[in-house]
Amino acid sequence: MSTRYERGLVRQAELGGAGGARERAYDALGDIAPDLPRLAVEFAYGDIHARPGLDAGRRELVILGVLIGLGGLESQLDAHIGSALGAGVQPREVVEAIIQAAPYAGFPRTLAAMSVARRVFDERGLLPVPPFIKE
Amino acid sequence: MSTRYERGLVRQAELGGAGGARERAYDALGDIAPDLPRLAVEFAYGDIHARPGLDAGRRELVILGVLIGLGGLESQLDAHIGSALGAGVQPREVVEAIIQAAPYAGFPRTLAAMSVARRVFDERGLLPVPPFIKE
Amino acid sequence: MSTRYERGLVRQAELGGAGGARERAYDALGDIAPDLPRLAVEFAYGDIHARPGLDAGRRELVILGVLIGLGGLESQLDAHIGSALGAGVQPREVVEAIIQAAPYAGFPRTLAAMSVARRVFDERGLLPVPPFIKE
Amino acid sequence: MSTRYERGLVRQAELGGAGGARERAYDALGDIAPDLPRLAVEFAYGDIHARPGLDAGRRELVILGVLIGLGGLESQLDAHIGSALGAGVQPREVVEAIIQAAPYAGFPRTLAAMSVARRVFDERGLLPVPPFIKE
Amino acid sequence: MSTRYERGLVRQAELGGAGGARERAYDALGDIAPDLPRLAVEFAYGDIHARPGLDAGRRELVILGVLIGLGGLESQLDAHIGSALGAGVQPREVVEAIIQAAPYAGFPRTLAAMSVARRVFDERGLLPVPPFIKE
Amino acid sequence: MSTRYERGLVRQAELGGAGGARERAYDALGDIAPDLPRLAVEFAYGDIHARPGLDAGRRELVILGVLIGLGGLESQLDAHIGSALGAGVQPREVVEAIIQAAPYAGFPRTLAAMSVARRVFDERGLLPVPPFIKE
Repeated sequence: MSTRYERGLVRQAELGGAGGARERAYDALGDIAPDLPRLAVEFAYGDIHARPGLDAGRRELVILGVLIGLGGLESQLDAHIGSALGAGVQPREVVEAIIQAAPYAGFPRTLAAMSVARRVFDERGLLPVPPFIKE
Repeated sequence: MSTRYERGLVRQAELGGAGGARERAYDALGDIAPDLPRLAVEFAYGDIHARPGLDAGRRELVILGVLIGLGGLESQLDAHIGSALGAGVQPREVVEAIIQAAPYAGFPRTLAAMSVARRVFDERGLLPVPPFIKE
Repeated sequence: MSTRYERGLVRQAELGGAGGARERAYDALGDIAPDLPRLAVEFAYGDIHARPGLDAGRRELVILGVLIGLGGLESQLDAHIGSALGAGVQPREVVEAIIQAAPYAGFPRTLAAMSVARRVFDERGLLPVPPFIKE
Repeated sequence: MSTRYERGLVRQAELGGAGGARERAYDALGDIAPDLPRLAVEFAYGDIHARPGLDAGRRELVILGVLIGLGGLESQLDAHIGSALGAGVQPREVVEAIIQAAPYAGFPRTLAAMSVARRVFDERGLLPVPPFIKE
Repeated sequence: MSTRYERGLVRQAELGGAGGARERAYDALGDIAPDLPRLAVEFAYGDIHARPGLDAGRRELVILGVLIGLGGLESQLDAHIGSALGAGVQPREVVEAIIQAAPYAGFPRTLAAMSVARRVFDERGLLPVPPFIKE
Repeated sequence: MSTRYERGLVRQAELGGAGGARERAYDALGDIAPDLPRLAVEFAYGDIHARPGLDAGRRELVILGVLIGLGGLESQLDAHIGSALGAGVQPREVVEAIIQAAPYAGFPRTLAAMSVARRVFDERGLLPVPPFIKE
């Protein structure tokens, strides 16, 4: 087991675990491409996510932006909204990050992402998200 | 002049001004669609960017992610890398945010974005970006 | 309730109502981002769709093109095919608009869009669409 | 010369000619893929654009939407803004069509498209586009 | 029935038939756009796929790349993974082709494509795919 | 220097060298993100491209498909058309691979890619590409 892989697994664990959905997705590839989940953990987490210079929460905000910009990746959005929460991003901040995509990626992708966030928050008992109160 | 427009202009000013490139792009639309820059300021900045609940720097990180995910928007990337710096995101953090896009949007779009960042940093005398030193 | 919001709702009503699917999608965001549907109605309908200078049917044809070009937005396509019909675009014209996307967006996205149109037309008892008869 | 090709050329001529830019682009492929422009004329114009059931101007509005949704295709946008004008779409309507893309494809692609339209209109002496006057 | 259509059908048959899913998708369009499947067979298969100069298997590898790059087209990926196998591409090569997309299109789209391949291989009794043995 | 990096460099050399354009692009990142070219060589070439199970030429055909599907990545297309030739793909086959993208990614992206291929072939003295002769 490479150091990169170990470092990637540690990073995933810090983000709250790969999550049931991701783990099942990885396991399901065991009889076709067992290398692919390993490559993802090594590169995406071991090489990149674990780099210093930007905290995990901000990295997840960038990833949410990328996924909304790419479009059509609801199951990945699901996993990364979970990781954002695991990295300490507050539910209200996740909501704002998704709304922030609207002027750039358009409403359709923004609404699709919010609907994924709603499902993740619901599973975790985080609804309703209290509206922001200006102090 | 609507309150939304004023609020949008204030927000843009807080981000270091619309920037020469953006201002020129807006001005150039004066004889074809003078409404469009106004709609962008009102909606993207007055309605969305100025919302509470997520600080300006994090909003710019989400926007960088969205633009890299969409692809092919170098001049907008240019403006938002400037806004990220204006919002207090450190050059090193901008670099890390772009690298963080690689496993999700792929290397080609990541390399294209880094090359825009290099140009912006060069114009602002921010090169070389010191490598991260672990304390 | 802002004038922009009211104008947006009026426009949506002119297009045959938000439609069951869209209303449910909007309602479902009530406990996470109640602002988002309001922002969509205000901006997409109140500010943009209700502008003079291009009739509602032609606006919906542009939107169909954008959604096919973006890809992966079947539920939004569903709503806008309904709005196109509500704006007086004939079923045959909707079919032709989707076919017109083929040389530009490729067959896969065109076929996906046609399959959404088929479902919308089926729900509204508009099938079969009579083939065009040259007079 | 196939009937499809002839029909495609006739259609292109009705739209005001392939346009200098497109013709040069086609010619430039003569020593690498002379078939490709022929395939484009046959399929995109002879098979699709020349179909009955939707007038040429509306077809061009769909195409503008598709190109804005796809992104990064400025030279094609240039040609099709010319074709839209050739099909009788008014400059003001082209402007409105592009603005209509903003809530769906986001501001960056909308602004990029408007800047192409400005260049096309400028070359044709169509600037400034008179603002819409409500009667 | 045009020669192009016949040639397209022959080519599809050589690739193992249009496949149940594709045939059903084509049939389902009979009451809305019976022309569209015909146009697809004529152009995509009769005009393009049947061209000399690149064998069918390599054509399918290009198509797999295009579909992964476009994103969100799982049912088309399903059909073309079947066609790749029909053209003699080995299961192990299909797996490698999908993994090859990771550095360019990113992991999310690559993982989504692999999961489609797994389903296709499962239906055809091709699992597990034996790991490559270096001779 | 990691084994992955060395293996990646060897692979790039087998493909005819990184090419002037790519080398210059990599060098230009030296004062902002010297890690990024290293990560690209290690992952894209050392981990992925150098894998057994699919020959280098077929890998480059997949990559051409991905880049055309993503769109807007002309400078990367330039480098990979060079790598395809370096891997022994014939100019005629590169042309056919690009034409094969038309029914899936649409003509605009196909034409943009062909125009990049023309420039690469021109620089290498490969024009005109002889039309395919059926034996």
